[in-house]
Amino acid sequence: MVEAGLSTPRDAAGASSEAENPRDSLVVRFGADKPLKLDAGVELSPLQIAYKTYGTLNADRSNAVLVAHALTGDHHVASVHPVTGKNGWWETMVGPGRPIDTERYFIICPNVVGGCMGTSGPASINPKTGKPWGLEFPVITIRDMVRAQAMLLDHLGIATLFAVAGGSMGGMQALQWAASYPERVFAALPIACSTRHSAQNIAFHEVGRQAVMADPEWKQGRYLLEGGNPRRGLAVARMGAHITYLSDAALHRKFGRKFQDRANPTFSFDADFEVESYLRHQGISFVERFDANSYLYLTRAMDYFDIAADCGGVLANAFKNTQTRFCVVSFTSDWLFPTSDSRAIVHALNAAGARVSFAEIVTDKGHDAFLLDEPELFAIVRGFLDGAGKARGLKARG
Amino acid sequence: MVEAGLSTPRDAAGASSEAENPRDSLVVRFGADKPLKLDAGVELSPLQIAYKTYGTLNADRSNAVLVAHALTGDHHVASVHPVTGKNGWWETMVGPGRPIDTERYFIICPNVVGGCMGTSGPASINPKTGKPWGLEFPVITIRDMVRAQAMLLDHLGIATLFAVAGGSMGGMQALQWAASYPERVFAALPIACSTRHSAQNIAFHEVGRQAVMADPEWKQGRYLLEGGNPRRGLAVARMGAHITYLSDAALHRKFGRKFQDRANPTFSFDADFEVESYLRHQGISFVERFDANSYLYLTRAMDYFDIAADCGGVLANAFKNTQTRFCVVSFTSDWLFPTSDSRAIVHALNAAGARVSFAEIVTDKGHDAFLLDEPELFAIVRGFLDGAGKARGLKARG
Repeated sequence: MVEAGLSTPRDAAGASSEAENPRDSLVVRFGADKPLKLDAGVELSPLQIAYKTYGTLNADRSNAVLVAHALTGDHHVASVHPVTGKNGWWETMVGPGRPIDTERYFIICPNVVGGCMGTSGPASINPKTGKPWGLEFPVITIRDMVRAQAMLLDHLGIATLFAVAGGSMGGMQALQWAASYPERVFAALPIACSTRHSAQNIAFHEVGRQAVMADPEWKQGRYLLEGGNPRRGLAVARMGAHITYLSDAALHRKFGRKFQDRANPTFSFDADFEVESYLRHQGISFVERFDANSYLYLTRAMDYFDIAADCGGVLANAFKNTQTRFCVVSFTSDWLFPTSDSRAIVHALNAAGARVSFAEIVTDKGHDAFLLDEPELFAIVRGFLDGAGKARGLKARG
Repeated sequence: MVEAGLSTPRDAAGASSEAENPRDSLVVRFGADKPLKLDAGVELSPLQIAYKTYGTLNADRSNAVLVAHALTGDHHVASVHPVTGKNGWWETMVGPGRPIDTERYFIICPNVVGGCMGTSGPASINPKTGKPWGLEFPVITIRDMVRAQAMLLDHLGIATLFAVAGGSMGGMQALQWAASYPERVFAALPIACSTRHSAQNIAFHEVGRQAVMADPEWKQGRYLLEGGNPRRGLAVARMGAHITYLSDAALHRKFGRKFQDRANPTFSFDADFEVESYLRHQGISFVERFDANSYLYLTRAMDYFDIAADCGGVLANAFKNTQTRFCVVSFTSDWLFPTSDSRAIVHALNAAGARVSFAEIVTDKGHDAFLLDEPELFAIVRGFLDGAGKARGLKARG
């Protein structure tokens, strides 16, 4: 096991990349003695995990909060992203005085297994070949991601998380944490998620994967070996997915039928409408920071996610006798993970006799609301963590 | 002007295709003396229109019903499709004894301008070059489609339509008919449509177009000239669009999370789930019958559609003093053209003092419900046409 500390800058001469040598990240590498046992029935080794921490672990190691990121997120939660130079994706939520308060909690965010920002994934080097894994990387699940995170906690000497929180795929991980390691999770905050991916969501993911695979530059997943990059396919996938993160109302409010820098239609296939221009930008900027194969693996992991299936088809069994406190949050205009999905979580938790509070937040911002400036969400997260902190005997802030 | 009657079979030796020499179709060709004046400010000539008719025009030419097809439909409404060999797309609605009764009405369905099944479009021959138009074909609008249809009616000697009916893009044409030629439309049946395309719908269309354009086989639209066919891009576009034609509930009912011919996940990127396999089939079968450039043109026409914009922004002005009777139909689970869109039509028609009835049909089948076995829709269409027929003095059936 090698602790690399803050990683060295990208080695321009080598085959390395953000996937192998993540910048501005903590890195831990588990060797052959500690393989990650995957749901696919194989073992992954070596396993590298890139992560960030914010705040300070207290003396009795009781204030750790694991933030789980979403499909296209990463561990750069509350600090500048080394590739894009943009602010962290959850800076509104995580920071000094923020709802997940870095002056009170010790926040850990790992890049997920299958990702491309420093944790082992298809863009990482396959030790057997010395070349990027590509599609030789084993297919992973949400449970595998959480298993790897548990290894990271063991490495950090953290027996129990005060809380685990995340939206979308991050929410799936929060639920999986509570199901896989109930004794290690004091409180869980699954936001805008579900216990299983719906047929419609699988369908949208499949279209995205097909868009990537239709790009000849994908080369059966061997683009990192053979040269090329399926940028156009990945951009199309991102554009389609991005629509599902918003809402009809939000798109109407933001763009309506407004033309882009013109008064009238051009009668061409230019981006006449602002919404077209916006989407194209979303696609183009995404491919600069994300690996196409990673996109395939992570969408697949979400599709496979079905906690009840792991427990004889009865969701409540997944949370039987749990002592974890839950706060489930949904958004009225989220049609990717509609409130009915969150209600199903709450019903199962109730059936399991769990402590659970539930909030449906009224907003037109769609699924992406969990990432945006949503004061009601901030108030709920703050309140829930404050209450749980008291129960856990954490010192109040300041 | 040349009336070709039933077209000759496809000329395997020539550059012809279904676009140029449509099988099992009636064809009319307007020469340089009768150009189609387009909204883009240019004239299209020659203009070929392929169409089908069913039933018999009565002596006073008062029983004509124009059926307008949707984005990927064509004029093979109620007879075998010459390319796929499948039944007509609206055989449940149009036929002897059906709601649009071929024993009572004379049904005309033209392929739209911009299409690829025999009416002039990007796959047709540009007379100036003797080669397929490709992107040299002018961008067309829904109003252009309707203008061309009016030329067809003039040619057939039909002054007034008893009715115009259609769903989705067909419904847009029905509305445009009533707006452009109120004196020529006795009754209009716009189903599952709106008077303008929403930002979200434009966004979905743009993703489809980008999927086509990202395919290197598209060759800047010159694949018919240079060889190749952007099949993979078009298939991805179709897959994405197809999701929007269904509903979350319908997908859940039909597929849920069922695996395809297997008990467990394969931990691969195969089509593990039935919904994936189904979508891939939708994509693959579509590209065998549809031209990729046509897809670009027709989605663009829908995006540009905004009847109110043509009338100073006031929708009611589009239908001022109209004598047309309207029957507007929506479906509860249609999220592409939700009931709120149909309500906006009804409100505008009410404000214009029009005769309008409105039905929202409860179904989980989504937007595609207008094409499916939906008894309530059949009853509504039949009843509306019966009533209008009495008012019009049409002989009752039998």
